[in-house]
Amino acid sequence: MSYVKKLKCLLCGTEYDPAEVKYTCPKCGSDGILEVIYDYEEIKKHFSKESLKNNKNYTMWRYLPLLPVDDPEKIGPLKVGWTPLYTADRIRENLGMPNLWIKDDGRNPTASLKDRASAIAVAKARELGEEAITCASTGNAASSLAGAAASVGVKTYIFVPKTAPKAKIAQLLVFGATVFAVNGTYDEAFDLSIKATEVFGWYNRNTAFNPYMVEGKKTVALEIIEQMNFEVPDYVFVSVGDGCIISGVAKGYKDMFALGLIDKMPKLVAVQAEGCKPIVDAVNGDGKVKFVEPDTIADSIAVGIPRNRIMAVRDVKESGGFGITVSDEEIISAIKYLGSTQGIFAEPAGATGFAGMLKALKKGKISKNDKVTVIVTGNGLKDVDSAIRAGGNPIIIDPEISEVKKILR
Amino acid sequence: MSYVKKLKCLLCGTEYDPAEVKYTCPKCGSDGILEVIYDYEEIKKHFSKESLKNNKNYTMWRYLPLLPVDDPEKIGPLKVGWTPLYTADRIRENLGMPNLWIKDDGRNPTASLKDRASAIAVAKARELGEEAITCASTGNAASSLAGAAASVGVKTYIFVPKTAPKAKIAQLLVFGATVFAVNGTYDEAFDLSIKATEVFGWYNRNTAFNPYMVEGKKTVALEIIEQMNFEVPDYVFVSVGDGCIISGVAKGYKDMFALGLIDKMPKLVAVQAEGCKPIVDAVNGDGKVKFVEPDTIADSIAVGIPRNRIMAVRDVKESGGFGITVSDEEIISAIKYLGSTQGIFAEPAGATGFAGMLKALKKGKISKNDKVTVIVTGNGLKDVDSAIRAGGNPIIIDPEISEVKKILR
Repeated sequence: MSYVKKLKCLLCGTEYDPAEVKYTCPKCGSDGILEVIYDYEEIKKHFSKESLKNNKNYTMWRYLPLLPVDDPEKIGPLKVGWTPLYTADRIRENLGMPNLWIKDDGRNPTASLKDRASAIAVAKARELGEEAITCASTGNAASSLAGAAASVGVKTYIFVPKTAPKAKIAQLLVFGATVFAVNGTYDEAFDLSIKATEVFGWYNRNTAFNPYMVEGKKTVALEIIEQMNFEVPDYVFVSVGDGCIISGVAKGYKDMFALGLIDKMPKLVAVQAEGCKPIVDAVNGDGKVKFVEPDTIADSIAVGIPRNRIMAVRDVKESGGFGITVSDEEIISAIKYLGSTQGIFAEPAGATGFAGMLKALKKGKISKNDKVTVIVTGNGLKDVDSAIRAGGNPIIIDPEISEVKKILR
Repeated sequence: MSYVKKLKCLLCGTEYDPAEVKYTCPKCGSDGILEVIYDYEEIKKHFSKESLKNNKNYTMWRYLPLLPVDDPEKIGPLKVGWTPLYTADRIRENLGMPNLWIKDDGRNPTASLKDRASAIAVAKARELGEEAITCASTGNAASSLAGAAASVGVKTYIFVPKTAPKAKIAQLLVFGATVFAVNGTYDEAFDLSIKATEVFGWYNRNTAFNPYMVEGKKTVALEIIEQMNFEVPDYVFVSVGDGCIISGVAKGYKDMFALGLIDKMPKLVAVQAEGCKPIVDAVNGDGKVKFVEPDTIADSIAVGIPRNRIMAVRDVKESGGFGITVSDEEIISAIKYLGSTQGIFAEPAGATGFAGMLKALKKGKISKNDKVTVIVTGNGLKDVDSAIRAGGNPIIIDPEISEVKKILR
């Protein structure tokens, strides 16, 4: 059994036994997202710096005592997590930032951070004996779910906006999901998948609906903490769509703080595209999120109605962090910079956190000596058209050395 | 310093001091590929099952004593290797093969096995003080080289056939390589890159020209050996283009055998596409390779003039293995099978080894109880068009639950 004590409503604070409620708070409805409360005193008996040192499981499951899985046998086989944290020496030198780290979470099985949440979803679905899982997604959550579910033989029904990048849809289809490409936005796909859960009884993995997804995503922070040898950076930069990843990062640090393994919290910086910045506006303003029509190249964070908005805004504000926006051009330029300077290939939303860090540095919101960690959330192979926009075009030549000479002259 | 004793010509057997020769045998020319000979007695003093057990470096560099790098400080930062070896339980059950393992090498930094060789190339180039590296590639060797070189600030000049998949070219450009897309085949690009090395003095990473590439690729076998707890399978299935990966696999097993850490060699099975099968024909015939015009969807192994042909044919024959071909349709169907059954997403050449295993099973060349390891060499995100051919199309609907009901009825 896990060390989960209660599920607690973000809005009304009511606490539920995990066996009582499956998704959001029955009293508060869809905004009443449930937070997972652990028995840290019990966890301390099984989890410490020492236990981590001896733990040879280099996946997200090395943090099992901090995860809401009751039956570890229900965990799927894909190797999720323990992605590289780079000291990014060339970028450090180039920017004059001696304390910069980059976490490349595009190295997960289906090439995005979302694999961490989907691994939990699949384990929970199997614990509950569910035969099918559904989710709505801008693409990555879906492809991660489809991959994880395929690896254990669970069916998936996926709702994505028709405009999702081809690569993400290709992943879904190869993983054998039933894919509904919705004539509409991610937000419409989200509502449709909730209805489908009611009608067909499928288990639902949606972000900010299923209470366990933040728990999966927090493992990225748990890893960063361990990989930084329990040193806490001043800032962590995260791209934000629904706001579930940044709340996951907050939760990871909170867990480690509650266990006494770190002595402070980092400031969280929410980065969004200029064409879709409801969370940033709320964080920097009165905390209220106004819905928008998304307009950005960064499809993974093109979310006009951020489902985890209340928790995300709270987490950034509580941390003392801030929000910042970047243009699509700045995102594209960050893709090229990360790739050509450090060999890290990010999709647009994956490079958005880094673009935000560059912007914050330029604007003096952070300084060169600050300790800064940036999370890259997805691999550039997920969106080749944007990569080509970032990278430019090859030089087409006939197979003659004279042609090479001509070009290089 | 490394434990490399000599470089030995595959054809004439002449042994050279590594400082004497950079690429192929001066006497034999381009077919005189040099093999790297180690001082195993010396290696034994520093490398054992025990030393591996205590080694916390979970990358290909955990095998440093078996690698030709003289100055470990010249190793780049990208985390290459220690990719998952899956027991593939659902495929085991589905095929009734209780002893099947799948190595997913698409989990490397630039999403292919070639990262292993490029990591060595970049370390060697830096040892030699080279300022630029060139290579010809069907795509993956190039993108891996460009990524690894970007991470340490070394320039790259890349020659690829113009027909290389868009995703691979996008990677190159984002990594900041100078990319020559050649109006011609991989084979023409190869020759052009050799000329460019002569003319411009760039360090050359070409497969079967640079003697150290097999050494990088062998780490996939070293990992498989350790991940299988030093048990040797009956067969290892590998897709074959130039023949450098399969020789790398052979070398990895030979190294471990020479060190007394395994007690036999596996049979190596070379898998090629029906439309490009020079190595398979040679292995199953008189050993002589006849050049062909490649015609296959599996671009990474569309190699009509396999540069490592002599070594590859020797290695497969010596191992007691065989060659087998698969149709493009079988490759496409293997992509879907791997994805939907196990959550492993492979590009066409990545799934070719597995397609060959299915074919060999069907034909009775191997039996269900044999111990079989299959290497997946590259990720499906590298070639989305082929993935869509494998996966089919999504179902386009308006965001109405009635539409979902209609489809599922």
